[in-house]
Amino acid sequence: MATVVELKPSGGKPRGRVKSPLDTLLELVSADLGRVNQHILDNMQSPVVLIPQLAGHLIASGGKRMRPMLTLAASKMCGYEGSRHIGLAACVEFIHTATLLHDDVVDASDLRRGQESANAIWGNEASVLVGDFLFSRAFQLMTSDGEVKVLRILSDASAVIAEGEVLQLTTANDPRTTEEAYLEVIRSKTAALFAAATRIGAVVAKRPDAEEEALESYGTNLGVAFQLIDDVLDYSADQKALGKTVGDDFREGKVTLPILLAWRRGDQEEREFWSRTIEHSEQEDDDLDKAMALMAKHNTLADTVDRARHYGAIARDALGIFPNSDVKTAMVDLVDFVIERAY
Amino acid sequence: MATVVELKPSGGKPRGRVKSPLDTLLELVSADLGRVNQHILDNMQSPVVLIPQLAGHLIASGGKRMRPMLTLAASKMCGYEGSRHIGLAACVEFIHTATLLHDDVVDASDLRRGQESANAIWGNEASVLVGDFLFSRAFQLMTSDGEVKVLRILSDASAVIAEGEVLQLTTANDPRTTEEAYLEVIRSKTAALFAAATRIGAVVAKRPDAEEEALESYGTNLGVAFQLIDDVLDYSADQKALGKTVGDDFREGKVTLPILLAWRRGDQEEREFWSRTIEHSEQEDDDLDKAMALMAKHNTLADTVDRARHYGAIARDALGIFPNSDVKTAMVDLVDFVIERAY
Repeated sequence: MATVVELKPSGGKPRGRVKSPLDTLLELVSADLGRVNQHILDNMQSPVVLIPQLAGHLIASGGKRMRPMLTLAASKMCGYEGSRHIGLAACVEFIHTATLLHDDVVDASDLRRGQESANAIWGNEASVLVGDFLFSRAFQLMTSDGEVKVLRILSDASAVIAEGEVLQLTTANDPRTTEEAYLEVIRSKTAALFAAATRIGAVVAKRPDAEEEALESYGTNLGVAFQLIDDVLDYSADQKALGKTVGDDFREGKVTLPILLAWRRGDQEEREFWSRTIEHSEQEDDDLDKAMALMAKHNTLADTVDRARHYGAIARDALGIFPNSDVKTAMVDLVDFVIERAY
Repeated sequence: MATVVELKPSGGKPRGRVKSPLDTLLELVSADLGRVNQHILDNMQSPVVLIPQLAGHLIASGGKRMRPMLTLAASKMCGYEGSRHIGLAACVEFIHTATLLHDDVVDASDLRRGQESANAIWGNEASVLVGDFLFSRAFQLMTSDGEVKVLRILSDASAVIAEGEVLQLTTANDPRTTEEAYLEVIRSKTAALFAAATRIGAVVAKRPDAEEEALESYGTNLGVAFQLIDDVLDYSADQKALGKTVGDDFREGKVTLPILLAWRRGDQEEREFWSRTIEHSEQEDDDLDKAMALMAKHNTLADTVDRARHYGAIARDALGIFPNSDVKTAMVDLVDFVIERAY
């Protein structure tokens, strides 16, 4: 019999004042990150007041700036000394924010990072349109950079993200989704932007293809691990730390790896339970508890963390071709941090 | 007392088999337009089947291809002989289509061009996400072109469109909106893409700044006239010809020039009517008739057409610097056609 995964609340900083790899990385790029934040603030301005209001709500509300930080870290590891990475890191965050705004509309979420979501406050219409504005602003930022290679990486990533979101929509309520199909979704909707964010570091530094590819692999696999852990945390984290309610994915009928593994490992009666609750969205009060019990029975939360470790290992090895440096060490350690935040 | 504007059903081709300026223009660029259509079909493909399904519903459903046609016509008038205009015209149509998808979600429209709208068939979620995909695809198409000037024109236009849509959302239910504020909305949400579509013709043909500016002015003013006439048609066109129900704007509380002029020209009692029906969305069965009667009383539909004529005149004059040609004549005549379709 499997054990239930016990998960502690997590946040930017683990308890006990031990400096996390995320903190170390943030310190290493802190001056640049300050410039990125200023760039973000400057570029979300508009005479249409609703735009900075709504964008500011989300952008200023405690996001970890994980993606732009990765662009800064990758650039630094590649020895880049110019300032193009500032605008591009801001661009990456704008794409991410636009996606979040549209995601909340699609998921009809009321909470985002523990606060009321923008659509809950300003309505779906405003969230759709301000999302479009931020998307367009992201493209203006990459156009200001002007290098076609960078434009291609970022516009390809945007298309892949959108494709992944549509794919997720069409597989969302099907517990029979294969692990491969699910991985395809998270590679697209989450990992593609991580990969673009890190790869850009090598491009601006004009490093050889091998380093671009290594950083793309790091970003992709870190992104997959990150999303898998997010999916685990949905069933385990303290609501306040995560900024969401436990079991949101279940209530929305969103099929993630912990559920699809439980379906595959379950007997006929269990599959009927998943079919009723996920496929047909017929849920009763104690169904979330029952779902958690089935995931515990089949050990699917812990096994999802194991899968994440696999992708994390690939991410770490991808950085093997870079010479040792403080930033490299922090990027390697970040992988463990992203995974171990589940505990 | 003013007369009621009598409007005939209109479409691509007026009755009586007289060739319209739109037909003439379509003939002049028909070979290129065929290539654009193929390019559009090729680029809306995706392994995620919902994407070509939904995009195809809209793209294939009888749009006039007005904007890509303008890119082709402007390129031809500028003597361009390459093929960059094909991909860019497709890009313009993708931006337009993405905007339509999101507009229908924001307006909660059930009909688009006389057919069920995509959101009515596939739901808002899919419309938001496929819109994002088409937006991203548009940016991939412009990135394939690669000229920074073109990228800037199109990404700026996208940001302006989104800004205009948000502005419209915040002014939508206020009949006190000034004519200037309203013009700002339609310059952004409609005319900016017309302007980008035409200006690109001069850019790919490497024509001097004066020609770029002339084409931008043509596009802007044609776009403003086009939108003003659309706003008039909402109250007058035969539903089938327009593909919408008469009075949709009124029912949605959307303030357009015919309404804001009626508010400005009305007495206290009339303003209370507009306040109740538009601002507070409290509408009764015969309110649309009453609104139409007030617009007739103050002649605001005919006067809106007059305003459109003003912008149309500027558009025509903007083309004055170009030598005479078949395409130029057709582009000039198109202005009248866009306006006179109201009659």
